[in-house]
Amino acid sequence: MSFIAGYKEYQNIVENWLDSVIINHSSFRTSIHEAMEYSLMAGGKRIRPILSIAVNDMLKGDRSSVTPYAIAIELIHTYSLIHDDLPCMDNDDLRRGKPTNHKVFGEAMAVLAGDGLLNLAYEIMLADAVKDKNNRLQKSETARLIAEAAGISGMIAGQVMDMEAENRDISYEELCIMHKKKTGALIRAAVLAPAVLLDAKEEIRTNLEVYADNIGLAFQIKDDILDNEGSREIVGKSVGSDEKNNKATFVSKLGIEKAKELLKSSVEKAVEALKTIENNDFLIKMAVFIAQRNK
Amino acid sequence: MSFIAGYKEYQNIVENWLDSVIINHSSFRTSIHEAMEYSLMAGGKRIRPILSIAVNDMLKGDRSSVTPYAIAIELIHTYSLIHDDLPCMDNDDLRRGKPTNHKVFGEAMAVLAGDGLLNLAYEIMLADAVKDKNNRLQKSETARLIAEAAGISGMIAGQVMDMEAENRDISYEELCIMHKKKTGALIRAAVLAPAVLLDAKEEIRTNLEVYADNIGLAFQIKDDILDNEGSREIVGKSVGSDEKNNKATFVSKLGIEKAKELLKSSVEKAVEALKTIENNDFLIKMAVFIAQRNK
Repeated sequence: MSFIAGYKEYQNIVENWLDSVIINHSSFRTSIHEAMEYSLMAGGKRIRPILSIAVNDMLKGDRSSVTPYAIAIELIHTYSLIHDDLPCMDNDDLRRGKPTNHKVFGEAMAVLAGDGLLNLAYEIMLADAVKDKNNRLQKSETARLIAEAAGISGMIAGQVMDMEAENRDISYEELCIMHKKKTGALIRAAVLAPAVLLDAKEEIRTNLEVYADNIGLAFQIKDDILDNEGSREIVGKSVGSDEKNNKATFVSKLGIEKAKELLKSSVEKAVEALKTIENNDFLIKMAVFIAQRNK
Repeated sequence: MSFIAGYKEYQNIVENWLDSVIINHSSFRTSIHEAMEYSLMAGGKRIRPILSIAVNDMLKGDRSSVTPYAIAIELIHTYSLIHDDLPCMDNDDLRRGKPTNHKVFGEAMAVLAGDGLLNLAYEIMLADAVKDKNNRLQKSETARLIAEAAGISGMIAGQVMDMEAENRDISYEELCIMHKKKTGALIRAAVLAPAVLLDAKEEIRTNLEVYADNIGLAFQIKDDILDNEGSREIVGKSVGSDEKNNKATFVSKLGIEKAKELLKSSVEKAVEALKTIENNDFLIKMAVFIAQRNK
């Protein structure tokens, strides 16, 4: 199967999971469901849950055991986008080619929809941990890994650093730490979650960490390059917004050519990290895909 | 010991726990810590964590085992207040006698501080569940109980209903459901958490549920009465805001006299529910206190 066909197959699995997750995990329907579903089903790339399923497949894990955690990560990612787009944050009107959550449902509902998605991620993981008496330790540990990646030492710290980096000249080192937290932490959790669930040996975990850190870096560099030279029509969100907001990026710090070199070398490191693990085909192509995508 | 002395003792325990919880549970310091600590240490009544400790004491549980869950509930309560106060939500300038979080740190930081507190609640509970191999099921179940109470079938559903009730004539039944979710759900989780942790028998859980539901109701009726007739100086937040915002309350629906009668009968039901449980003294006085407080 070609990489694109494999990716689409994984994407379909994720879309099917997500399609009913909100209604299946709530006993009381209010209008917030629509707002949550709007952003959750807005056609994201699903890179994080796809990484979780693909690593799980590579390690020959049972797919149903990774499902709640892959879903939780995508819920957390989606909540972070909704809050990030708010007028008081990045003030973006467009996300994935569609009006942002607060543009459709209003700011108050967008705040609550984000809160609801974040909380639902934990409801789903905890329901799973309660249910499975044989693997409760691994499941609690996986949920904890995801929680720490999403929190004030991980993704939220990155968002704070990002916010405070506007209109201030941050160093290249600060930029790297910021992105390692803002986008890297959740990608790392997505890659490591199956290894924790399956209690994989230390060597495999270390290799997966190197892979995750490098595709996380590649992902962000590519985002910055797309914002710098992509077209709004293809990227599906406002482009040039980094420059407009005077934000430090890999492109502004390194220049476009060096940014592209760093993108290339981080993909190479990611590929290298997986070479001793069997069935690495999809994940290696995934690293290449992250660097080559045009949106 | 008098009830007030007992309450103050519990309150001191909670303050001490909370004082270092954010820094103890994060490996990376950013400016969000200050924003989170500002609201967390702003001198709340601490009713929810005190309920958890008191129920735990009544059931003769080990106090250290309830700590992470009592803290988590107060973090969740605090996050909900920060987001609730935002300009796009209730737009309140004053909370517990101090400027609200967004007034001090700006809206963007207030959104993130709320997100950070919510997420930290789960980081703390999951770290505890991972650590304790003997009671991992009860701990996962307790975390799940709290997660469901906080989520889109619980507290968040209540906030959505509350928001949508403005400028619309909601029924008395809708008002009751709204408050049972908005304030009742987390109070219920605080009361039930020790029973789940200690695997208490069904009869005790049922009685605790009746107690929790009735003090939750009493708490909200009292809040509405204070907003209607309290003074700003004593209550510590803007009073009369419900009327200003044209919000349905127990006072607007029932009139002040009937609201006071319902407050009285709900306290009586709460007291009645505990009568077969030993060591109920503090919790019975707590129900009375909730109805008599002046802020």
